[in-house]
Amino acid sequence: MAGTDHTKTTEPALKGLTTPAVILVEPQLGENIGMAARAMLNCGLTDLRLVAPRDGWPNKDALAASAGAVQVIEAAQVFETTTEAVADLNFVLATTARHRDMTTRIVTPHQAAAEIHAVLGEGENRAGILFGREAKGLKNDDVTQADAIVMVPVNPGFSSLNLAQAVFAVCHEWYLAAIDEQEPSGLAIPKETRPASKDELNGMLKHLGDELEDAGFFHVEGKRPVMERNLRNMFQRANLTEQEIRTLRGVISSLTRTHEKK
Amino acid sequence: MAGTDHTKTTEPALKGLTTPAVILVEPQLGENIGMAARAMLNCGLTDLRLVAPRDGWPNKDALAASAGAVQVIEAAQVFETTTEAVADLNFVLATTARHRDMTTRIVTPHQAAAEIHAVLGEGENRAGILFGREAKGLKNDDVTQADAIVMVPVNPGFSSLNLAQAVFAVCHEWYLAAIDEQEPSGLAIPKETRPASKDELNGMLKHLGDELEDAGFFHVEGKRPVMERNLRNMFQRANLTEQEIRTLRGVISSLTRTHEKK
Repeated sequence: MAGTDHTKTTEPALKGLTTPAVILVEPQLGENIGMAARAMLNCGLTDLRLVAPRDGWPNKDALAASAGAVQVIEAAQVFETTTEAVADLNFVLATTARHRDMTTRIVTPHQAAAEIHAVLGEGENRAGILFGREAKGLKNDDVTQADAIVMVPVNPGFSSLNLAQAVFAVCHEWYLAAIDEQEPSGLAIPKETRPASKDELNGMLKHLGDELEDAGFFHVEGKRPVMERNLRNMFQRANLTEQEIRTLRGVISSLTRTHEKK
Repeated sequence: MAGTDHTKTTEPALKGLTTPAVILVEPQLGENIGMAARAMLNCGLTDLRLVAPRDGWPNKDALAASAGAVQVIEAAQVFETTTEAVADLNFVLATTARHRDMTTRIVTPHQAAAEIHAVLGEGENRAGILFGREAKGLKNDDVTQADAIVMVPVNPGFSSLNLAQAVFAVCHEWYLAAIDEQEPSGLAIPKETRPASKDELNGMLKHLGDELEDAGFFHVEGKRPVMERNLRNMFQRANLTEQEIRTLRGVISSLTRTHEKK
């Protein structure tokens, strides 16, 4: 194909619409980061976040491969951990090529697009899509940060997608839904609250983890990381609101504090 | 993303289905040809045709960039002209990034996929999709070989798609139509467990409610029914498995029992 606007960058096409962030976790080749940035801007997206890019940042190869998506490359933010990269987001999707042995909802890019639009259509919410590093994909610990898994349906006999290709496959569905001005559908949230940020969810999980640590729960079970991941998966899946996080923290405090008085 | 089958190539996923050809007209970089071949095989396509590739054929860069799509690269046919390359085809689409000053029907990749399937479903028909060279796209003489134009909807302010990206965008719609939403979607549940019954969910909620009653939680809040409903909503939404219900009961017992001992 190859467009006629090879080096032209203009304002994002979708003014007024809140757009999701693209988070590349431990990307290896600068060239792939650049091609991913190009794919993002093809789809009207500009919020690029990098978690621990192998070759550091900025990266000349990334700029060269972006084919003019300079605004995306220059505004990219770098984080040390996935947790930090998603801290301000209310809704996170993880893109994976294979099934995980986890109880997590799986959606197609088409469904993912509808859900992102539904979440972003409500007030101040922010959403993001995680992509793993080349060849290995996301670690389970990254996937557990997500509300759902996106799987791009591909030939099961040859399922390895180029990183930028995966970014395009997911983001393009978002773009198609955006220009279609589809009616949002999805979770109905009461007006007086909003989806919890990942930071709030993590705070509650840490509260619970610390109390369970005190209670010897992990010692008995003998496998804290697995158990913590299981707990995270459950609460992640519930799409908790900020109000519900506060309720749960009240529950945890109540269960522990009162018994301490006995 | 990055699959687990990085170098694995197997038989096409869609046995019995006639698949369209992908025709790259005057491609310049071997790397782009290789990435296009990879994108094709991701979508179950294997019939690659090259019209006058700039750097000749075979091309080592193409093989390297194909990431294991060797069967596509090795079976590629080379032609001198577009006319020869499409000679045996009954239905041809031309992918372009911009409007042509021609009276030609324009379709989206989604519509193109439906038309290709309709044509290929009838007897001995063959179909193909044309892609132009990098930066310049197809010449008008190439486009006139086609029954219709495919345009991938992208950000009008940054519409230059990487060649392999364009190949993927069009071919993937064909693949999605081919598998016809047979891909599993929904909650992935590990084999060793199953969704909890309502009875199990209610048992856990009663356990939690009783402990909170003891802890004075509802008294403080002053509105037990509302609070119980809120808690039920959260856990209901999480689609818990039977195993997770047991984990949660362990959590409740652990938080209360240990503190009773203090």
